[in-house]
Amino acid sequence: MTNETIPTLQDVIAARPNVYRYLKPTPLHPYPGLSKLVGADVWVKHENHQPIGVFKVRGALNLAANLTAEEGQVGLFTASTGNHGQSIAFAARVHGLKATIAVPEGANPGKVAAMRGLGAEVIFYGPDFDTAREWIMAEAEAQHGRFVGPAEEPLICGVGTYALEIMEDLPDVDTIIVPVGAGSGVCGVSIVAKTINPKIEVIAAQSAQAPAMQLSWKTGELTAAEMKTFAEGVATRVPFKNTQRIMRRYLDDFVLVDDEDIKAAVVLLLEHTHNLAEGAGAIPLAAALQLKARLAGKKVVLVMSGGNLSLEKLRAILGSYKN
Amino acid sequence: MTNETIPTLQDVIAARPNVYRYLKPTPLHPYPGLSKLVGADVWVKHENHQPIGVFKVRGALNLAANLTAEEGQVGLFTASTGNHGQSIAFAARVHGLKATIAVPEGANPGKVAAMRGLGAEVIFYGPDFDTAREWIMAEAEAQHGRFVGPAEEPLICGVGTYALEIMEDLPDVDTIIVPVGAGSGVCGVSIVAKTINPKIEVIAAQSAQAPAMQLSWKTGELTAAEMKTFAEGVATRVPFKNTQRIMRRYLDDFVLVDDEDIKAAVVLLLEHTHNLAEGAGAIPLAAALQLKARLAGKKVVLVMSGGNLSLEKLRAILGSYKN
Repeated sequence: MTNETIPTLQDVIAARPNVYRYLKPTPLHPYPGLSKLVGADVWVKHENHQPIGVFKVRGALNLAANLTAEEGQVGLFTASTGNHGQSIAFAARVHGLKATIAVPEGANPGKVAAMRGLGAEVIFYGPDFDTAREWIMAEAEAQHGRFVGPAEEPLICGVGTYALEIMEDLPDVDTIIVPVGAGSGVCGVSIVAKTINPKIEVIAAQSAQAPAMQLSWKTGELTAAEMKTFAEGVATRVPFKNTQRIMRRYLDDFVLVDDEDIKAAVVLLLEHTHNLAEGAGAIPLAAALQLKARLAGKKVVLVMSGGNLSLEKLRAILGSYKN
Repeated sequence: MTNETIPTLQDVIAARPNVYRYLKPTPLHPYPGLSKLVGADVWVKHENHQPIGVFKVRGALNLAANLTAEEGQVGLFTASTGNHGQSIAFAARVHGLKATIAVPEGANPGKVAAMRGLGAEVIFYGPDFDTAREWIMAEAEAQHGRFVGPAEEPLICGVGTYALEIMEDLPDVDTIIVPVGAGSGVCGVSIVAKTINPKIEVIAAQSAQAPAMQLSWKTGELTAAEMKTFAEGVATRVPFKNTQRIMRRYLDDFVLVDDEDIKAAVVLLLEHTHNLAEGAGAIPLAAALQLKARLAGKKVVLVMSGGNLSLEKLRAILGSYKN
């Protein structure tokens, strides 16, 4: 696939065996309580039910299944303290590959332990994330291994498999709302839904406290922006070119929601679905509540992309939202 | 099936199509953080991922698929304000049956709304639960419908399907720990696991603040006991004869854990699995922590039977456990 082409439905279908060799399809559940709140027929796609609590694991499994022999021998390299790093570690483990993950000095010990628990080698390097990433990219190149960025095409095709599950479980869906960090999720959903039925509306949503991807999509110019959101899964400061071109081709809309509304949505999701959503995973509900007039009476899928909210953040959120 | 026979593995296998017509298998995930805490290889069976957040829905679907024509025409009757009632309502809806559910006057409005949201007719009757149940049993008989108690054999066979999933996903499991309310879950697990491999240890667990089922199992005499637990899913005061006879045949052990330890386990599960467990669903972890010496190094499955913890209870628990 060159940089000029866009992954297709066929590429997503080809990713399925790579995903289902290790994962079960996730459920799509209707929630009468949320439907009443939004004034639409609301369903939740539970990617928070994945083994490491996040949709990204699908993409990492597809990528790991498509390495060259040389890459496979050396292994996977990335820089991440979060869901991306855990996904790479998970995929490496089940494929019997080595995963080397760089993090800045002082990175969260709990997250480092989680990646090490999955068998990854975690290396502390440099004072900040950019330094760690540049160093590990050079390492990967020198060793002829595979560096994995957060928005690569095999990742998009892998995560697109959850959109195929939505299409099978709810063929007459009207609108799918997807949170955006680097954009692999929303690209996978767009490619699948728009190819199968261009009338399905795909709406991206992001925190207003991290609007780089939305600004870039609106203007067509890659634009960095201030990043202050609490929602780590969507904490993007510099936009990704690869996903932007796919989003500009397919996406119907891209809305911003305030961090405070995302936190309120975490509480509503606990109350009505008894599922713990991380900030990113609660963004679609916050967006749906903002778009009530437009969604009235429609069949709406909210993608709960992940559930990795720390106990500390959960306590703080429950302390502030007495709904 | 007469009262003298015990359901078999074959009955559970026969229930599978009735369950999978409407539900996906639930995941069984390993958790390195819990393994470290318990000192064993700890896996969690996520029955909290079911559409209404609880394993019981499997049993109700099997029961609804096995009605006589006359029962089907009149519909299902039960008395419940909790997971049992929601399960019956769910199964009735997908089967196009009428569900009539009696609750005492003053029953929790949120739970009544949940059952009505699933299409059930909810009738308030009498000052307490026993009055409501006796009335609805008489109604069911008068109308020739089907009254469904909490521990009937078609329910046991339906819920046993999750144990078959455990056996498929982790064939070399050593120990399965299951919470006990009326006992349908632990009976389904025992029948399946012990028939496939008698060496698999099945341990039941209940709140020390509701020990009727444990006392009855220990003594062989049906013994009512004080019931003060916060965990509604296991709030049993009067033991069930039907499940006791199966438990006495198959069960390896039955332990009690204190309500305070169950609450601490709810917090540990949030932290390490990012899943919300109701009290019953957290009992197996509390039991495993109590049985550390005995479980050391073993492959242990904790059944997270359900996730229906109210926001109010969650706030209270997080407020008291500052781990």
